[in-house]
Amino acid sequence: MDFEEKTLKRTEIYQGPIFNLVKDKVQLPAGKGTAYRDLIFHNGAVAVIALTSENKMILVKQYRKAIEATSYEIPAGKLEVGENADPEAAALRELEEETGYTGELELLYDFYSAIGFCNERIKLYSASHLTKVENPRPQDEDETLELYEVTLEEAKAFLASGDICDAKTIIALQYWEMKMNRR
Amino acid sequence: MDFEEKTLKRTEIYQGPIFNLVKDKVQLPAGKGTAYRDLIFHNGAVAVIALTSENKMILVKQYRKAIEATSYEIPAGKLEVGENADPEAAALRELEEETGYTGELELLYDFYSAIGFCNERIKLYSASHLTKVENPRPQDEDETLELYEVTLEEAKAFLASGDICDAKTIIALQYWEMKMNRR
Repeated sequence: MDFEEKTLKRTEIYQGPIFNLVKDKVQLPAGKGTAYRDLIFHNGAVAVIALTSENKMILVKQYRKAIEATSYEIPAGKLEVGENADPEAAALRELEEETGYTGELELLYDFYSAIGFCNERIKLYSASHLTKVENPRPQDEDETLELYEVTLEEAKAFLASGDICDAKTIIALQYWEMKMNRR
Repeated sequence: MDFEEKTLKRTEIYQGPIFNLVKDKVQLPAGKGTAYRDLIFHNGAVAVIALTSENKMILVKQYRKAIEATSYEIPAGKLEVGENADPEAAALRELEEETGYTGELELLYDFYSAIGFCNERIKLYSASHLTKVENPRPQDEDETLELYEVTLEEAKAFLASGDICDAKTIIALQYWEMKMNRR
C-alpha cells in the first residue's frame, strides 16, 4: 500500500529558538486529494536515567510553562545546533549541569515524543557508575531546578499523584521497574 | 523554593486546526530577570492498548508527515473541541474508526507528550473484552491506515528495528511486558 504524503507546498510560519513551525500542503496517497499538515520541527533532545549506588533515581523538579505547573522529571535537555553528531556528549552535559553527576552512558530508547505533528526525537540513556563532578558546569540561567533522589516506591507515588506526568519519565520508571523485577 | 514563571506578555503567533502557538514573556523566579517561552497549545489526545483474545496487540501502520516515514503505533487520536469532558467516548470512537473493535476501557496513564514546550496530554487506556463492531465508523478521510495484530515478541522486534518509534507506543509495550511478567 502507498502511504506517502508528498509535499506540494511548504509555508514557513514561524522560526524560533526551540522549534520551527511550517504548514505543508500534501498530496494524499491513493487518489484521496490534498490535505494540510501543521508541523513542528525540533532539533531533538536527550534524557538520562541516572540511578545512584543506593538504587535511587535522580529526578529534577522544575516549572513547565506549557502546563503552568512544576513536575518531577528525569534530567533532559535539547540538542544544541550542531550537537546531533554527538548526542552522548549532550547527555553528559545535561546530566552534569542539572545534577552535578557524570557516568557511563548506554542508549536505551530513541523515540519521537509527539509523532502526530512534531519531529522531536529523544535519545534516552541510562547512566551507570555515577560520580560527583568536582566543579560541575552551572545550570542554565533561565532554569530553576531542585534535585531529588527517590526510591522506586517514591517514584511510583509521584506518578500516582501526578507529580510525575511526562512521557519520557514514565518510560524511565517502567524501564527501572522491569530491571528490578529481573533481579 | 519559588518556581513560578509569571506571564508578563503573551503574543499569539499562530492558530491552527491541531494546535496554537504563542510566545510568552515571563518573569523568572528569584529575581532572575525575564525570558521568553514558545508554547504549543493542543487540545489533548487519547490512545488505546487493545489486546485481542489471542493476546496480540493491535497496531496501526500510518504515514507521519513530521518524520516523512511510516510508523506502527497503538490506535490514537486527538480530542475534538468539546470532547475533553468525555475522553472515554473519544477513545472508543478512535478504536472503532481505526480498528473496527470496541471494548471495555480502563485508564492506565495520563501524561504530557512533550512537556518542555507543549501541553498535549494523552490519556492512555487499555481496552479489554474486544468485540468487532458490525458497521464501524469509517476512518478519517485524510488517513491511510493498515492494521496489524502482533505478539509481544513481534512488537519488540518492531521496536528494535525502529518501526515502533513513538513514546506512547513504547509506554504501551512496557505495560504489556510487565503485565505478561506478572502472570
